[in-house]
Amino acid sequence: MHEECGVVGVSYSNETPSALSIYYALYALQHRGQESAGITVHDGTKVSTLKGMGLVPDVFNKGDIQKLKGHVGIGHVRYSTTGGSKIENCQPLIVSFKSGTIAIAHNGNLVNSKELRTELEKEGRIFLSDSDTEVIAHLLVKKLMHSDLDEAVRELMKRLVGSYSLVILVDNVLVAVRDPLGIKPLCLGQIDNGYMVASESAAVDILNGTLLRDIAPGEMLIIKGGEYESKQLVRSKNYAHCVFEYIYFARPDSVIDGELVYSVRMRIGQTLFSEHPVKADIVSPVPDSGITAAIGFSKRSGIDYMEGLMKNRYIGRTFIMPGQDMRETAVRLKLNTIKPNIEGKNVVLVDDSIVRGTTSRRIIDLMRKSGAREIHMRVASPPIISPCYLGIDMATREELVAAHKAVKGVEAVINADSLGYISIDGLVSSIGLPQDDLCIGCLTGAYPVEIPGEKCSRRQLKLSEF
Amino acid sequence: MHEECGVVGVSYSNETPSALSIYYALYALQHRGQESAGITVHDGTKVSTLKGMGLVPDVFNKGDIQKLKGHVGIGHVRYSTTGGSKIENCQPLIVSFKSGTIAIAHNGNLVNSKELRTELEKEGRIFLSDSDTEVIAHLLVKKLMHSDLDEAVRELMKRLVGSYSLVILVDNVLVAVRDPLGIKPLCLGQIDNGYMVASESAAVDILNGTLLRDIAPGEMLIIKGGEYESKQLVRSKNYAHCVFEYIYFARPDSVIDGELVYSVRMRIGQTLFSEHPVKADIVSPVPDSGITAAIGFSKRSGIDYMEGLMKNRYIGRTFIMPGQDMRETAVRLKLNTIKPNIEGKNVVLVDDSIVRGTTSRRIIDLMRKSGAREIHMRVASPPIISPCYLGIDMATREELVAAHKAVKGVEAVINADSLGYISIDGLVSSIGLPQDDLCIGCLTGAYPVEIPGEKCSRRQLKLSEF
Amino acid sequence: MHEECGVVGVSYSNETPSALSIYYALYALQHRGQESAGITVHDGTKVSTLKGMGLVPDVFNKGDIQKLKGHVGIGHVRYSTTGGSKIENCQPLIVSFKSGTIAIAHNGNLVNSKELRTELEKEGRIFLSDSDTEVIAHLLVKKLMHSDLDEAVRELMKRLVGSYSLVILVDNVLVAVRDPLGIKPLCLGQIDNGYMVASESAAVDILNGTLLRDIAPGEMLIIKGGEYESKQLVRSKNYAHCVFEYIYFARPDSVIDGELVYSVRMRIGQTLFSEHPVKADIVSPVPDSGITAAIGFSKRSGIDYMEGLMKNRYIGRTFIMPGQDMRETAVRLKLNTIKPNIEGKNVVLVDDSIVRGTTSRRIIDLMRKSGAREIHMRVASPPIISPCYLGIDMATREELVAAHKAVKGVEAVINADSLGYISIDGLVSSIGLPQDDLCIGCLTGAYPVEIPGEKCSRRQLKLSEF
Amino acid sequence: MHEECGVVGVSYSNETPSALSIYYALYALQHRGQESAGITVHDGTKVSTLKGMGLVPDVFNKGDIQKLKGHVGIGHVRYSTTGGSKIENCQPLIVSFKSGTIAIAHNGNLVNSKELRTELEKEGRIFLSDSDTEVIAHLLVKKLMHSDLDEAVRELMKRLVGSYSLVILVDNVLVAVRDPLGIKPLCLGQIDNGYMVASESAAVDILNGTLLRDIAPGEMLIIKGGEYESKQLVRSKNYAHCVFEYIYFARPDSVIDGELVYSVRMRIGQTLFSEHPVKADIVSPVPDSGITAAIGFSKRSGIDYMEGLMKNRYIGRTFIMPGQDMRETAVRLKLNTIKPNIEGKNVVLVDDSIVRGTTSRRIIDLMRKSGAREIHMRVASPPIISPCYLGIDMATREELVAAHKAVKGVEAVINADSLGYISIDGLVSSIGLPQDDLCIGCLTGAYPVEIPGEKCSRRQLKLSEF
Repeated sequence: MHEECGVVGVSYSNETPSALSIYYALYALQHRGQESAGITVHDGTKVSTLKGMGLVPDVFNKGDIQKLKGHVGIGHVRYSTTGGSKIENCQPLIVSFKSGTIAIAHNGNLVNSKELRTELEKEGRIFLSDSDTEVIAHLLVKKLMHSDLDEAVRELMKRLVGSYSLVILVDNVLVAVRDPLGIKPLCLGQIDNGYMVASESAAVDILNGTLLRDIAPGEMLIIKGGEYESKQLVRSKNYAHCVFEYIYFARPDSVIDGELVYSVRMRIGQTLFSEHPVKADIVSPVPDSGITAAIGFSKRSGIDYMEGLMKNRYIGRTFIMPGQDMRETAVRLKLNTIKPNIEGKNVVLVDDSIVRGTTSRRIIDLMRKSGAREIHMRVASPPIISPCYLGIDMATREELVAAHKAVKGVEAVINADSLGYISIDGLVSSIGLPQDDLCIGCLTGAYPVEIPGEKCSRRQLKLSEF
Repeated sequence: MHEECGVVGVSYSNETPSALSIYYALYALQHRGQESAGITVHDGTKVSTLKGMGLVPDVFNKGDIQKLKGHVGIGHVRYSTTGGSKIENCQPLIVSFKSGTIAIAHNGNLVNSKELRTELEKEGRIFLSDSDTEVIAHLLVKKLMHSDLDEAVRELMKRLVGSYSLVILVDNVLVAVRDPLGIKPLCLGQIDNGYMVASESAAVDILNGTLLRDIAPGEMLIIKGGEYESKQLVRSKNYAHCVFEYIYFARPDSVIDGELVYSVRMRIGQTLFSEHPVKADIVSPVPDSGITAAIGFSKRSGIDYMEGLMKNRYIGRTFIMPGQDMRETAVRLKLNTIKPNIEGKNVVLVDDSIVRGTTSRRIIDLMRKSGAREIHMRVASPPIISPCYLGIDMATREELVAAHKAVKGVEAVINADSLGYISIDGLVSSIGLPQDDLCIGCLTGAYPVEIPGEKCSRRQLKLSEF
Repeated sequence: MHEECGVVGVSYSNETPSALSIYYALYALQHRGQESAGITVHDGTKVSTLKGMGLVPDVFNKGDIQKLKGHVGIGHVRYSTTGGSKIENCQPLIVSFKSGTIAIAHNGNLVNSKELRTELEKEGRIFLSDSDTEVIAHLLVKKLMHSDLDEAVRELMKRLVGSYSLVILVDNVLVAVRDPLGIKPLCLGQIDNGYMVASESAAVDILNGTLLRDIAPGEMLIIKGGEYESKQLVRSKNYAHCVFEYIYFARPDSVIDGELVYSVRMRIGQTLFSEHPVKADIVSPVPDSGITAAIGFSKRSGIDYMEGLMKNRYIGRTFIMPGQDMRETAVRLKLNTIKPNIEGKNVVLVDDSIVRGTTSRRIIDLMRKSGAREIHMRVASPPIISPCYLGIDMATREELVAAHKAVKGVEAVINADSLGYISIDGLVSSIGLPQDDLCIGCLTGAYPVEIPGEKCSRRQLKLSEF
Repeated sequence: MHEECGVVGVSYSNETPSALSIYYALYALQHRGQESAGITVHDGTKVSTLKGMGLVPDVFNKGDIQKLKGHVGIGHVRYSTTGGSKIENCQPLIVSFKSGTIAIAHNGNLVNSKELRTELEKEGRIFLSDSDTEVIAHLLVKKLMHSDLDEAVRELMKRLVGSYSLVILVDNVLVAVRDPLGIKPLCLGQIDNGYMVASESAAVDILNGTLLRDIAPGEMLIIKGGEYESKQLVRSKNYAHCVFEYIYFARPDSVIDGELVYSVRMRIGQTLFSEHPVKADIVSPVPDSGITAAIGFSKRSGIDYMEGLMKNRYIGRTFIMPGQDMRETAVRLKLNTIKPNIEGKNVVLVDDSIVRGTTSRRIIDLMRKSGAREIHMRVASPPIISPCYLGIDMATREELVAAHKAVKGVEAVINADSLGYISIDGLVSSIGLPQDDLCIGCLTGAYPVEIPGEKCSRRQLKLSEF
């Protein structure tokens, strides 16, 4: 499972430069994308952009940030789900058009991107990149030819199918848009002398700001001159917040759609024990993403929480030589067992999810080699049986072990003494939001938007709803 | 005076990879642009591109070149005249559209770029860069919506005002186009198992190929499957070959529009003596661009050719500390006098051109300091009185010393004992082409295309000519 | 508190290349030094070395590692305590002398380095760097002029005062030496077809090896041709293992001098509660180094373990703009509170140590801002009242807050509701080794070696003991 | 034939920072070494050094230069003749010893380096690099143990056999030393508020200074506080100035041992015609090193000087793919014929020297392919029949074509219509110094110093001469 994107927008009412704040905010969102980073600011007259491949501190230095003048700006970190790993695909995307410039930072994934592109190409339009964002730019500008911003974005929403949290600079006006289903997170924060929007509230915290609220699904915010204006462009009956933001992707210290991720993970751990009780000597997480659920499991079960695996904090660009035990080496470079903690013990091992099953298998093998007696795997997500089309880079259906095997089969594949997944109900109640407001497409195979060849879980939005 | 761009296209009839050949060819054209370099190849299925900031050997390594698969491809080196120094402006520009992909490498400068851009924006189109090339791409694709390639390029030619030597990949077909006035050079060469086009014949030489001919003004070549097809899309009565390619910009070993640059420069030197005879002890060039003319001057005059100035071959990214004698240091870093060669001598100093006059002044001061008795400046171009809008980055009219002063005035500014420019007639006869086929806009202020606020030297092409 | 050095040596009895194994082992020891990294191998004929500034994966790529031929080699990662941050100071240090070459990797700090250097300079010797290691090299070679290896190293030990775990290549023989007090760790592991020595057993684990034992204080190991030979060159009555390896510096999954670091930290946490009981809602660590002690505290106290602070995993080369709240920003970039976990709660905050007190103060302020009701600080080390001269880069005596204030004073400085340090006795019993075998100089001000101006805790080794 | 080293030293009597001046001077000496560059300055209290791999502008930026404080300093550029291409071998070499620090920059090559090293190793000394310079440092410090500077350098001179132009900082005193035979150049210049020494006078020119004189063979200069003191430590009856500095290595605009290099090359060209007259259409140089001799040849012969070959100014780090015509490509990347200038012509081709003969062969083949009728090769050096041990990296005796073949044989190898080398007498008279004061070891096989296995051309210096 890989990451995707993080977006941020900052608007000061006074002359505070926005670039430094965006830089810090992107840094707080670095876990959402390590492939490229970019910042665009507007100084009232013109846009300036700096973007590059790599981590936030690699892309920007102090001098760069100081040169980016403007009290309003947006930023983006990216791990590509659509569009290759090229400098051309780095965001923000800047386009000039009839009336000025538009800069766009996008988190999400359109499922009708190809269709829209073909349609736009038929009109004689050209594309310089293969990103969804360029498709959005074309459509937005097209709509703006004949409509004001509200109407243009409303029209845009009619055409885009998929997930999109957008942060846009229309000249020096900051605009934030969240798709009508609210698939990807986007929140509003107040900072000294201004406002900000960001994928996660941790970015608000890093600027010492106050989380005001989430952007509502279908809402557009226009921030300018120290004030923000809200337009509810589309109202959906139900939402489709991504459950994997809670399970795995977001930071534990972020609050998403009203729920603290840390608390959700604690409740998941507690529910996991209730649903799959076991007697054991210790509860141990697969670090880092299994930690909080393991603590919850320990609390509910009374079984001691103890780290049986140590993660190398410096894992990164290490190379592996091809060879027989290459994959084992790869796991050992990342994780080491704390042998005395698990030797001769019955261990509950808590992980966030099982995708292909191969990593789980190698971890369990490693722990058995270190002397663990029994290993009881507990998983913070239900079985993933279907791919994600909306922004989480999981795997293809062929690769997903639970798409082809029942729980007992997966248990055998990963070589666990027992295997327990949280139930969908358990997950939903742990999150604390109505099931109808969550996207669980990867867990059921029925998606909240129409995807060719897949089932749709709900009535589509009708045009009248716009 | 700075450089602009070089383009190349290579098409093999067999499976020879084109990228390596393009790499070498760009290397031979490096003098035409040191800011960025790019190569695009097509393998029959898809385009691959690699581009970056810097010199050709800095942008590409062996592994990169080997990864660029395809027996047809194009390349570009660039020094920006329009469009800032950004990675987004690197060429080739790749666009995808209704029917596939188009990659464009462009040498030249449109004078109606802004106007075309505004017109395209009015249609709702968006621009991701500020380069002329994106304008060309939009127009070409627009025309291709309703026409075949011939017709589309013919239509394109009707709209583009300015200089353009274009090398284009339409999927895996190599297309070469030269503007109807033939302002920028473009030639056709035969290589083992294929054909190539390039800005200069030196690029054909480096691949051990044979120069076949220049692409005619208004001609389009389509190269595919080991054959090339010529379409004379527009016929102009007269051409407008840039004289500065001969005077300064092109390599001496290139043949442009039938004339060897070296020979032109030799004849210029000879003519210079005939027009401005002088008695002196030695003839010395300002290296490197004055060398050949100085040799010609020596030959005609019988005055000994002797180097009075030495150029540091490693000049490049050296920094200069601000301060009183900074500008003098800057010249001294680049040039050193060979004192004993000029001490007590009457020296004829030959340079390619005088732009602002400041460099000439500093060189002459340096030579006087080293003991030169008299310094007689002879210049291989007539006085530059007007800016270039068509691709040579000279200076603004305000900066051009000859725009504001007569020869005697310039002589005083540069502190020469005498100053002689070649005459326009002398230059034209040295080049050996009819004056009506040359662009001498910078020498007369009358340009071969209509430029707002400037005089036009000739009747514009009528639509009927297309 | 900063890091220092990690060393590793690998010797295969067959032709397995050692460089790749050393690379992985250094990667496991990366936490011991991030400033530079180096590998030296010997192929039976000659040494090859590669070293550079930066993290292990930045210094070496696959091609580099493949070029380092030899089945025996050593490696080093470094954070300087003596010697500036220069490429010249990177290790291994390679010297050639009368009988061949010696490569040295050194972890530790000599307290008589200056004195030895002066003495050697008096003999006319010259120094090309300012590192302790060059001093060791001079002395070793000097002794080798008249003695065999055993005797030379024994003589060397007589002269070196301080901590030193040395891994040495004498041509293609791997030699490991640990100072007579065993201040810095060094262990022996068995790997497929060979042996290895390393600063920590985690480096043995990453190579899928088996930890055999620690190198004894005063012991020299000679590894060659698939066998190792032990020489107990010096026997000390007592040892002086650094307690901070257990408290803070080593990996939790390493076993040092027989004790698993993780278990020591668990026991420290338990002891901390016993010594400083408190009623609270949650126990929360300062991540990462306070985690295990916090788990131990929770286990003994029954208070829920819950993360109240989140660490940004990507912290690194981020810059901070100077300004009023710069230091607060610096903490916020590194740590974020999980507000709902601490809001209105009484929190036990567990950290590994307090050095200057400033970071603790800022963390506590941050938590109070997030609504924590009471904050009870519990510290896994006793008060640090004196600097470390033996390899841990702590601070000067002036900077150490506990050098100048009693516990109540520190409590006020850091703004805690209560403050409890573990006692020296509690620490010693948590470690599980006799107090006489530990170095607690920084906790008592009395050191195990003579340091000018400081008290010495014990009788010095007499020559007769060698 | 490759380059070796350039050295510079600058001492201001006032507080002018020396680093910037050294930077510019190294830039003027860049042709003497492109592999690494270094600057060391002394501010009265301590030395600061910056060195790195690459060209001068790559190694230093403005900020670096500003940080190097001190009004006295030395610099070095290097292409290794002894010692591999490693950062450890970059100069200046800085050593600390009993009485302070010494920084050394060395141009030249010791022939008894190994012997001295062995001797020093026998005394128990160690070496951290494999450079001659470290040997010199050891010896100098050893002598300084018991003697003052004059005596120590005199003693040093007794031990060093070979070429050495040394620029040394003894704390903040600038010392310049030239070997008793004056093999490598070293000159003294006056600059504003100070003095400088440098390998070539072009470095004095770039600082707008005045060349005062050459350092005499066997002389030591001590520069301090705005004054310089000369000590003639050794007087040789004859000198041994390297003839290849004139033929090839030095800049044409430098004056070496009283002779302007440009003038020497002009005279060589004239002599070449006198010795080997020929009828031809044009005289053409192999650029760049054959240019001046070709001009001289043209002048004496009356045959037109015309460029038949064009050099690519950007040649550098270009890669060549292995393959059949790789070597031909390599030549073509570097040189292109100006076809019309040589087609059907009888050409005199002037080059500085013939080493292996392979390059000459490829150039002649290239010219024949371009249609040259006859090619008459004229060479500015006599046949090279023996290797250089004193600092010019030529080739081994096996590789030297003239070591194994007579002129007619070489003519056949290079495929010339005729071949004429300048005679040794002709060369000597062109240089203008007595033959007894020149090193012509590579031309005769008899060297001015004793080299094991080679003939010695002259009586060795006796100790009494010191």
